[in-house]
Amino acid sequence: MTAPDCDLCRGEGGIVLFRTAVLRIVRVENPDYPGFCRVIANRHAKEMTDLSAEERAEIFDAVVALESAIRRLLFPDKINLASLGNLTPHVHWHVIPRWKTDVRFPDPIWGPTSRTGVVPAPVGNLDDRIATELRGALHRP
Amino acid sequence: MTAPDCDLCRGEGGIVLFRTAVLRIVRVENPDYPGFCRVIANRHAKEMTDLSAEERAEIFDAVVALESAIRRLLFPDKINLASLGNLTPHVHWHVIPRWKTDVRFPDPIWGPTSRTGVVPAPVGNLDDRIATELRGALHRP
Repeated sequence: MTAPDCDLCRGEGGIVLFRTAVLRIVRVENPDYPGFCRVIANRHAKEMTDLSAEERAEIFDAVVALESAIRRLLFPDKINLASLGNLTPHVHWHVIPRWKTDVRFPDPIWGPTSRTGVVPAPVGNLDDRIATELRGALHRP
Repeated sequence: MTAPDCDLCRGEGGIVLFRTAVLRIVRVENPDYPGFCRVIANRHAKEMTDLSAEERAEIFDAVVALESAIRRLLFPDKINLASLGNLTPHVHWHVIPRWKTDVRFPDPIWGPTSRTGVVPAPVGNLDDRIATELRGALHRP
């Protein structure tokens, strides 16, 4: 089920790191927040309660696995999780590492910035490292 | 486990509508968003991945039940779900009904307002009606 005018039906929404029949996990290219990823439902549904219990469980598992991977790899001061979708009403979860020295902390990431941020420089190929962690955590027999 | 300087350890964080050993669901008093509720972990944990799998599952079930109750009672245009905690690093989920005519739509609720909002006036005692829906959805035998 796709919607012709939906950005997340027409495109992947980022660099795909992991994919199942239900969802894909993509990395968001935003230098202010290294490791910022999204979990995106493959089918077009507006709300979590428009999905089946099985689809929801798989999405929540992916959000948790991503939080865990990002914490292990990047040691953020806080993780922000959010499913908003006011502009793109197709279920997608933001999993955002935050540092006390980032451009907006402690404000949410959607507001204006007031300073230059300092965030860690990822070591090695961060996409590969996140993808490896996800494969380990989300492997289904 | 409580933290002496944590607002969500020292207080309930809102009007309690439902409670288990793991969590409480509270209604947030914010006239811009009738039905705005939070799911708050009872014990002090910074991130979802600091909780057990069982605690996480119970919290996600509560978030889903709340989304479902708010949709049935208030017919919002969108639901926003978020666990941020930059200022209060104690797991709590915002479950926020949004209307296209509210004070900030389509922006997230944490930014400035640019207009007077129009949102539905709840019929009857909304707290009681949400609590009744939650008891029905989250009853554990």
